[in-house]
Amino acid sequence: MTVYLVGAGPGDPELLTVKAERLLRRADVVVHDRLVSPEILAHAPPWAELVDVGKRPGGSVQQNAINAVLIDRGARFDYVVRLKGGDPHVFGRAAEEQIALGNAGIACEVVPGISSAIAAPAAVGIPLTTRLASSGFTVVTAHQDPATDRSLDWEALARLGTTLVILMGAARAAAFRDRLVAGGMDPLTPVAIITDATLPTMRETRLRLGELGDAPVVNPSVIVIGAVASLDLRSFASASLEATA
Amino acid sequence: MTVYLVGAGPGDPELLTVKAERLLRRADVVVHDRLVSPEILAHAPPWAELVDVGKRPGGSVQQNAINAVLIDRGARFDYVVRLKGGDPHVFGRAAEEQIALGNAGIACEVVPGISSAIAAPAAVGIPLTTRLASSGFTVVTAHQDPATDRSLDWEALARLGTTLVILMGAARAAAFRDRLVAGGMDPLTPVAIITDATLPTMRETRLRLGELGDAPVVNPSVIVIGAVASLDLRSFASASLEATA
Repeated sequence: MTVYLVGAGPGDPELLTVKAERLLRRADVVVHDRLVSPEILAHAPPWAELVDVGKRPGGSVQQNAINAVLIDRGARFDYVVRLKGGDPHVFGRAAEEQIALGNAGIACEVVPGISSAIAAPAAVGIPLTTRLASSGFTVVTAHQDPATDRSLDWEALARLGTTLVILMGAARAAAFRDRLVAGGMDPLTPVAIITDATLPTMRETRLRLGELGDAPVVNPSVIVIGAVASLDLRSFASASLEATA
Repeated sequence: MTVYLVGAGPGDPELLTVKAERLLRRADVVVHDRLVSPEILAHAPPWAELVDVGKRPGGSVQQNAINAVLIDRGARFDYVVRLKGGDPHVFGRAAEEQIALGNAGIACEVVPGISSAIAAPAAVGIPLTTRLASSGFTVVTAHQDPATDRSLDWEALARLGTTLVILMGAARAAAFRDRLVAGGMDPLTPVAIITDATLPTMRETRLRLGELGDAPVVNPSVIVIGAVASLDLRSFASASLEATA
């Protein structure tokens, strides 16, 4: 009689947590997003019900319909796993599901997962923070409710001095560029775009902020903006922190 | 002949990744920080060498001494695991170790871990982001190189509108408060302090920004500042998003 809101991590099945894998192995029901891979779902027992509530071209499952599924299954089964890409609270709308379940009197527990905001830069040799070039990081998404989107202070974002990570920003990459440059960020600021991070299909593009959005960006992509985005510590011989600090 | 720079997660041994656990089980050497728990180190084989390079009262191991240990062991063993609390690139100085290993011609790979910046709020019912109250999050640390610390724009940080997470900020909590309030952040902004996040010894304090630092804060603590910090979705009946949005 518990619904576990579980982060599935960035894609690589080995980046699941031990706890997520254990919960999946005993799940009665798995309610999952489209981005969760078959290899990860394969941890669930053969008799578990798999419910795909992922958004897809041509239609999407509304949040209140997802809530209704969670309440229904949560009332009927011992182990319901709500599996989300990345971490449940990093733009995963877990709060809304916690509230709906709480209102229905159904216990729930959040199990954090590795966000692609952290895993994607690491996968292409970019350190999210370093003592030499970045004193913090900021994560935003382009899939915002327009009301809260307006609450973001773009000028402050441009001036902040931390590494900026944009999740699900493909469709609005050019708008992000325009707002950041208008806010005072240098158009020469290094940018990295990582698509399908940590999966065998992963690919990356390095460019400058002024070029962001000139070529189409496809989701799921992580956009990293800041001095660290020009680094590739996988092949350190060809990189130099001094050159970008 | 590979050094794996591995995130050990926030504390709970079940929040290790599957990959971290697999690498620990075959490690020849584990070079670890003080915050990594005995339960996690117990995954290493009995014959593995454990090297504690954690900082402690009365002394600390310098980064270049740690680099030297990694280069030495990396040249002599197949599986060297450098185990860091949280994620290696979230203030873990992994970049410096990657550079040192790269310069020495030793292969290394980063394995991300769950940062306490993400796990700690979740553990006390705080959603790091929600559509209703927070459009992103920013993570900074109080353990900075003074040179990069000066590069942080405090006024921008105060104005940004994202949830702010401060790691290892215990000793400088009052200084953070003063700089944020001076930058224009409302002294009534909700704050949560989470100590020993995800461990059985976890404890939490809820207050307002203007009170931060009045009482001593002990490390390891995660300080969460923003509208979401007043929420506790573990017991939703007593909370209300509307009241804080």
